[in-house]
Amino acid sequence: MILTVTPNVALDVTYRVDRLVPGAAHRVREVAERAGGKGVNVARILHALGHDTVALGFVGDAAAAAVADDLDRAGLAHRLIPVAGPTRRSVTVVAGDGEATMFSEPGPPVPAPSWRALEALLAGSLPEAAALVVSGSLPPGADDDACARLVRLAAAHRVPVLVDAVGAALLGAAEAGADVVKPNASELVATTGRADVAAAAEALRRRGARAVVASRGAAGMTAFTPEGCWHAAPPARLVGNPTGSGDAAAAALVAGAVAGAPWPDRLRDAVALSAAAVLQPTAGSVDLAQARRLRPQVVVEDHHGAGLDR
Amino acid sequence: MILTVTPNVALDVTYRVDRLVPGAAHRVREVAERAGGKGVNVARILHALGHDTVALGFVGDAAAAAVADDLDRAGLAHRLIPVAGPTRRSVTVVAGDGEATMFSEPGPPVPAPSWRALEALLAGSLPEAAALVVSGSLPPGADDDACARLVRLAAAHRVPVLVDAVGAALLGAAEAGADVVKPNASELVATTGRADVAAAAEALRRRGARAVVASRGAAGMTAFTPEGCWHAAPPARLVGNPTGSGDAAAAALVAGAVAGAPWPDRLRDAVALSAAAVLQPTAGSVDLAQARRLRPQVVVEDHHGAGLDR
Repeated sequence: MILTVTPNVALDVTYRVDRLVPGAAHRVREVAERAGGKGVNVARILHALGHDTVALGFVGDAAAAAVADDLDRAGLAHRLIPVAGPTRRSVTVVAGDGEATMFSEPGPPVPAPSWRALEALLAGSLPEAAALVVSGSLPPGADDDACARLVRLAAAHRVPVLVDAVGAALLGAAEAGADVVKPNASELVATTGRADVAAAAEALRRRGARAVVASRGAAGMTAFTPEGCWHAAPPARLVGNPTGSGDAAAAALVAGAVAGAPWPDRLRDAVALSAAAVLQPTAGSVDLAQARRLRPQVVVEDHHGAGLDR
Repeated sequence: MILTVTPNVALDVTYRVDRLVPGAAHRVREVAERAGGKGVNVARILHALGHDTVALGFVGDAAAAAVADDLDRAGLAHRLIPVAGPTRRSVTVVAGDGEATMFSEPGPPVPAPSWRALEALLAGSLPEAAALVVSGSLPPGADDDACARLVRLAAAHRVPVLVDAVGAALLGAAEAGADVVKPNASELVATTGRADVAAAAEALRRRGARAVVASRGAAGMTAFTPEGCWHAAPPARLVGNPTGSGDAAAAALVAGAVAGAPWPDRLRDAVALSAAAVLQPTAGSVDLAQARRLRPQVVVEDHHGAGLDR
């Protein structure tokens, strides 16, 4: 079973409009709602890949029932901790031409006792877990060590951890010895203050992260690992909704880690699944048949331990 | 006491962002929520003007409690009928420069028994009422006569009715003998299929509406009434959020009707209040001191019974 932690679960709301015109009033033709947040999306894709998952995290209690109902309908096991306040929404406005414009609410702050409750829940679940994924933004006011504490807890249970986070949470996860951190290239460079992706990845590995996978959007992703350095790229530039493609990559990477797959294979799967996610209109959805078709077309290059940008 | 009916009550959500860029992901800096829908906004302004009000209408039950809580906090009496489904949201994205972009959800359909419950509630409240305002879009699937039935009910109790609606609901309200209908000029022309505002207003009056007040945005508004025809214009072009300015005008017009004020005075108040509403960032808010300052600057012209466009 793979655990996911979503520190700031959202209700993902999708609006369909004909065209988005700033300054205008729009009648929304169609409204769709479902449980979201990056860790929830990772669980959704892992579930589609055939893995048992349990989604942990915090959810603002105002619409916590709607979130739980949606997860139940999707067959996703969850143990979310309600916190007082509005349920964070993430509104995506999709125009007729497919253009997606997203508005993410900050979500409610999570009090210290709720963090302790999450840690207790996680400690109770880790003995059954094959891996842990911590993914998504932290709630407002979370302390810098919050993510690192979850990583240390998993390490104490010898459960491999993948972290998709930014800023202080990313640095903390690296220092706590996360097995994989998966920032996008620009966040990675911004967080470490290094000149290029390879130097930034090296800095995170020196802090304690075992492997760093830097995603580069349509250019694919680069893995910096103890076994070597590889870059994988999709066959062609794909047009679609990039929201959720990083979550598909995270799901593939953790599934590969659980299976003990070699890094080039993990990376190939991550790029194929991520590309298939771009072609789907809603975040957290992947057409697995499409991912299988794309897989052989992914180009994996061995950088022989050298960073791509050196 | 003035009754308002909002057939499709909403939760008005306001997002503050730095800049709205179509196709981009936006972190919302600030989220504000309050009960909305045109009739609710009219009640809010009437309440500010010192009138007792009772807000009636339908609300999707998912977040009905949040709507009721907000109305309670504002001191607004309400008797809303919950209907199964999501609570309609209207999301306004306000950029740093004040530009407001609105997305209105359709809301849940209202089953026939709920319409009968509203009519029963209205019939029970009308004996105490000085006036009725029916304002805002009808829920999806509402029958064309729904608005007219409310107007006839008020007429049977000799309670004056103001209707702010469009399309079939507007035509039905006119035929049912509404005392005032208040469409905007372009909706009025579109609904009646006439060439200009004066001809369209005349058509509605022939169908049975006593008075037609056509709003023209920054150009003010024109009243076509049994007593004559007047046009009122604000002193200068006002920059701000026009959402809710029509609701301010409706509140002023119904307050004037209850007071038995002459039409030129009602129109002057409507334009002043409407202009003050434009200057406020949130719909349903008006700075009354500002409206009082603007009032003497409103230019009222007597069109001697002739339509403005003739």
